[in-house]
Amino acid sequence: MIRFKNARIMTMCGSTDIINGELWTDAEKIAFVGTPTDEQLKAARFEKEYDAGGCLLMPSFKNAHTHSAMTFLRSYADDLPLQQWLFDKVFPMEDKLTGEHIYWLTKLAVLEYLTAGMTACFDMYFYPDDFARANIECGFRAVMCGSVSGGRENVKRLADCMERFNGKHPLISYRLGFHAEYTADYELLEAVAQLAKDLRAPVSTHNSETASEVADCVKKYGKTPTALFDSLGIYDFGGAGFHCVHMTEEDMDIFVKKGVYAVSCPASNAKLASGIAPICRMAEKGVGLALGTDGAASNNCLDMFREMFLLTALQKLARNDAAACPADTALTAATVGSAHAMGLDDCDVLAVGKQADIIMIDLAQPNMQPLNAIANNLVYSGSKLNVKLTMCAGKTLYENGKFMINADTDEIYAKANEIITSMK
Amino acid sequence: MIRFKNARIMTMCGSTDIINGELWTDAEKIAFVGTPTDEQLKAARFEKEYDAGGCLLMPSFKNAHTHSAMTFLRSYADDLPLQQWLFDKVFPMEDKLTGEHIYWLTKLAVLEYLTAGMTACFDMYFYPDDFARANIECGFRAVMCGSVSGGRENVKRLADCMERFNGKHPLISYRLGFHAEYTADYELLEAVAQLAKDLRAPVSTHNSETASEVADCVKKYGKTPTALFDSLGIYDFGGAGFHCVHMTEEDMDIFVKKGVYAVSCPASNAKLASGIAPICRMAEKGVGLALGTDGAASNNCLDMFREMFLLTALQKLARNDAAACPADTALTAATVGSAHAMGLDDCDVLAVGKQADIIMIDLAQPNMQPLNAIANNLVYSGSKLNVKLTMCAGKTLYENGKFMINADTDEIYAKANEIITSMK
Repeated sequence: MIRFKNARIMTMCGSTDIINGELWTDAEKIAFVGTPTDEQLKAARFEKEYDAGGCLLMPSFKNAHTHSAMTFLRSYADDLPLQQWLFDKVFPMEDKLTGEHIYWLTKLAVLEYLTAGMTACFDMYFYPDDFARANIECGFRAVMCGSVSGGRENVKRLADCMERFNGKHPLISYRLGFHAEYTADYELLEAVAQLAKDLRAPVSTHNSETASEVADCVKKYGKTPTALFDSLGIYDFGGAGFHCVHMTEEDMDIFVKKGVYAVSCPASNAKLASGIAPICRMAEKGVGLALGTDGAASNNCLDMFREMFLLTALQKLARNDAAACPADTALTAATVGSAHAMGLDDCDVLAVGKQADIIMIDLAQPNMQPLNAIANNLVYSGSKLNVKLTMCAGKTLYENGKFMINADTDEIYAKANEIITSMK
Repeated sequence: MIRFKNARIMTMCGSTDIINGELWTDAEKIAFVGTPTDEQLKAARFEKEYDAGGCLLMPSFKNAHTHSAMTFLRSYADDLPLQQWLFDKVFPMEDKLTGEHIYWLTKLAVLEYLTAGMTACFDMYFYPDDFARANIECGFRAVMCGSVSGGRENVKRLADCMERFNGKHPLISYRLGFHAEYTADYELLEAVAQLAKDLRAPVSTHNSETASEVADCVKKYGKTPTALFDSLGIYDFGGAGFHCVHMTEEDMDIFVKKGVYAVSCPASNAKLASGIAPICRMAEKGVGLALGTDGAASNNCLDMFREMFLLTALQKLARNDAAACPADTALTAATVGSAHAMGLDDCDVLAVGKQADIIMIDLAQPNMQPLNAIANNLVYSGSKLNVKLTMCAGKTLYENGKFMINADTDEIYAKANEIITSMK
């Protein structure tokens, strides 16, 4: 067992309240949270002890929408209009990607996730075998989201992946999904809905990221993307909508009724000028909220602290109300909400029996002082610099600025540079 | 002399281009930038050598608007409407501040500035002697801005401070300023204008932070704050406007004509729902742009990386244009622009004879890879975690996460907590 003592602990079990005490892990799970009795301490066998020294233990962040391997396009095509960015810059480069590229570029993203206290990502991209291999080698938890597009024949790949990746490795899972309405034939959407019914499985996809996406869909089908998906039964077993910037009241009602999570990506939506998602309105209606970074091509950094700040700050701006979207909303979305949106119900909070997906936050840093409200400090002034330790499934993957994983960081950086240079 | 070798160097002399080479400092100044000849190397006597290992040297960030000692109110009163925040929470607590409090709370801010690569701040607050003492002890550069309010009798304090703090210590200077139009009698504004004329000195103040501030001023004087100040001659020798969120075309023209800098504080303006400053429009017109964090009560963190990202991202949102406000605009504002707005013309860029106010950015971090465009990486994915070294006036004050200053960080944190606890 591993023991963390002298810790502040924010379990996120229903609130952001903090207790003082200990947390023990046993293999991949949390074995104890609280103040142990002398008998419990006597009976315990610890292979490692951390003195947290008053630092904060909390559930790790989960990145509920990303395209990890897009790291190769970081700062490659900034400050361009959206269409030019996507069609002239992103798509032609993506066409050149191989499975080997995905492997290295995913590892680069995983390094960055760990520095920002993330232990899981909900990833939509290419070459699932290479992606899974990279994550497994790093000890990182990954949920893959189907990314099919085009015609109905492609749905077979989805079914194959569901079979091939679920229940095979404890860190890897796969969820039904398709790229977006605007890259899917109607028959593909029908086939996805049928598969969702057959498997009684949730479906996740890009949804209402831009105003033009919604307008085009309404023009084509007489319905918003959400209403279209709902009419086909795509959301009958829940799922997640990525971005959800341009949502109607009816769209939000569908999300509530069908238990679909809205995964907000505020940095990407700002940088690409897509807009500000109606987070407060969705929260009022009871839509489940999650947070994602999107890929490094559009964001450009993979940092949940930035996403949390933006989630709340942009709501305050959009609503012209400094009281809008309090800190707890952002903190809950980045942890518990994102875990649930990804189907990771066993690593959402700090409680006995849950997966030990934990971060230690350094409070002995100037941006965390004084300790008026630790939850607010995390959201409004927290940064990667405060992540002292990142643990996934009971294994420490990052500690005091060092990566404890089976990977040579210099080799990963060199490969990433080689890959993009070879494509230019 | 101190030698940095094997460095990438972004001098910021007119562009964000990067050269490979060396930078040497001699006492508080930069002595060499470029590739030395064998003769130069042979003649040089180095007391210390850093192998930058390909890391980036660039001018440090300068924080062109802050209230450093407001650190005590970090996360003390978030998510409240602006008026309630200010009148019920901030002002009553500020009334309890003593000079000793300012000393400790300023030191807390300086620690945070150093972690974020800042080496100077333009500070408007109380107890200038205690504030100056804290900065001098830390080796940090501070420009104080007059903060008088109320009646004309208070202008005497301004003149005293100009006399008392300028030319006395190389790290400390003082500039004419007053709190804001809405806290100043008309006679005070007249007296400030007269003093500016007498001293041929620039004047800095809060300007057009909120829509109601501007509306109230127009109601009272028939003029915007900027037009009012201009009509009195307050800006006749330049200066800086803090915030500049709600600016008319005429206001911007006055800024250009009088050489007044607009100091944007995008995080604070977002968190307090004040709005988005017309940065693109001001840039088009040729207004000098600078960046500030504002105080920790409203922001809540003192991080120029966040301000740079927000400066550009919020413009993209406000203009509905992903091409708006490119990365270089933010980078220039945070370094050269801020230095000039504060009157620090001798520590703006990396060139021989300039003050050695320098940061080293760690590029061997996942969020900085690959190296498609380093300037963009800084603005769009940079973070405090990338600040490897912060040097002010030739002295290293922060290196690899450690503070090299004459201060006990634990004592500073304890004092900050004691101060706010004693006031609650």
